[in-house]
Amino acid sequence: MRTTEIFPKGQKVTGNFIGDAWVEMLSNDVANFDAMVYNVTFSPGSRNYWHLHPGGQILLCTSGEGYYQEKGKPVQVLKAGDVVEIKPNVVHWHGAAPHSEFVHLGITTQASKNAVVWYGPVSDEEYAEKS
Amino acid sequence: MRTTEIFPKGQKVTGNFIGDAWVEMLSNDVANFDAMVYNVTFSPGSRNYWHLHPGGQILLCTSGEGYYQEKGKPVQVLKAGDVVEIKPNVVHWHGAAPHSEFVHLGITTQASKNAVVWYGPVSDEEYAEKS
Repeated sequence: MRTTEIFPKGQKVTGNFIGDAWVEMLSNDVANFDAMVYNVTFSPGSRNYWHLHPGGQILLCTSGEGYYQEKGKPVQVLKAGDVVEIKPNVVHWHGAAPHSEFVHLGITTQASKNAVVWYGPVSDEEYAEKS
Repeated sequence: MRTTEIFPKGQKVTGNFIGDAWVEMLSNDVANFDAMVYNVTFSPGSRNYWHLHPGGQILLCTSGEGYYQEKGKPVQVLKAGDVVEIKPNVVHWHGAAPHSEFVHLGITTQASKNAVVWYGPVSDEEYAEKS
């Protein structure tokens, strides 16, 4: 499903993810922009933990097939060209579909409102339910 | 030079540009995110007027070859994968190279600081000097 690799894959993520994922920071000047921009690559089946962003996050999906779920809502399947607006303080997770890599650009908006708050793993059972 | 079209081309821009360009708004919820995200496609030789953003702007170049110039500095040639951080109140322009379409994602950061300020066209002479 991969059609392009425009931005670098970056470094392997070491915490708060299940499975292999990589992040490349593209812009991290919070003082001037109050935002962070990065490229995230999820291996098939990988996903981040349940979490929220106090200032919100916008995802721009660029290749493969992914999943996005807000707490208490159905999973959404994501493909290249999809845009996800995650409002401040909405608990959610995102990751790759079981048989596809998934790449999205991410924008942490209002980044000065500070860090991600993590709520623990999306279990295999939770992830499988949604497939 | 075009390798991909992930996001829609959108509508033709009607002011403050020379030549044909198109913009598709991808996220425009300033109340929740204090940011706007959009996809811009420049036809060969097209460019926007000199302008500034009071809250800054970040460009993520996705295809073709483009130009970026800050007032008083040399032009920079842009290609897919390049990221441009345009700090608040820096007067600049961007557009396509003479013989290539150019596509970038744009993020208007700190969008609540309000609109673009326009300073008039980049003349053919100014543009040609930089080629």
